[in-house]
Amino acid sequence: MQCEPIGTVSTPFETTSDAPSQGFHEDSAGVVHVDEAYAAGLSGFDAESVVVVWWADRADRSVLTLDRDPSRGVFTSRSPARPNPVCLTECRVVDVDLDARRLSVRGVDMADGSPVIDLKASLRERVD
Amino acid sequence: MQCEPIGTVSTPFETTSDAPSQGFHEDSAGVVHVDEAYAAGLSGFDAESVVVVWWADRADRSVLTLDRDPSRGVFTSRSPARPNPVCLTECRVVDVDLDARRLSVRGVDMADGSPVIDLKASLRERVD
Repeated sequence: MQCEPIGTVSTPFETTSDAPSQGFHEDSAGVVHVDEAYAAGLSGFDAESVVVVWWADRADRSVLTLDRDPSRGVFTSRSPARPNPVCLTECRVVDVDLDARRLSVRGVDMADGSPVIDLKASLRERVD
Repeated sequence: MQCEPIGTVSTPFETTSDAPSQGFHEDSAGVVHVDEAYAAGLSGFDAESVVVVWWADRADRSVLTLDRDPSRGVFTSRSPARPNPVCLTECRVVDVDLDARRLSVRGVDMADGSPVIDLKASLRERVD
């Protein structure tokens, strides 16, 4: 189950620890950059929110319980440190530039430069 | 970015096409089986809902636009066919058996036997 990045996300945060827990607590600005090879995947994109599926590439994959509470396992949380550090952040979309393959978003909590695995329609939009 | 399965999910559906679009439209029953190596990740699990992150292992990864509407790219949808077929299904949890490492859930839409990559706390629970 090998993932290939479809792009990256730029954020104000050097590490996931610098970021707010669950981006919606704040409204930090970021940019999703989609690689040229995946440009067609953005066709017709006009949603007001999007789920960014990203890879916490600096996370500890050996962690199974929470540092702050070892009686709780990682599957009870959304902490990036987990066996497969696939993370989900629902962001507001404030601008779409399809030619440049850029989505300007708010509510980011990723470490700057994190690989993006996927972008999904927000369930609030119910486009499927 | 290699993922290792943490378990599998059993569902009534042979393929993702057999399943309802976005599991919450129906309330189909399934079971998440967590592998022994990841049992500690379930410690203290008692939530009423969970986000199952699964891999659509039979999906077409070469797809960038939607069959039913080629003017729309896959990043505007939740269709399993996408470059990285990491799928998200939020399920109700109806029973937790930590010894057997089984979560009985409702609202499944995965193909039976799909690998599970991760389990995440539901945002409704706000446990983080």
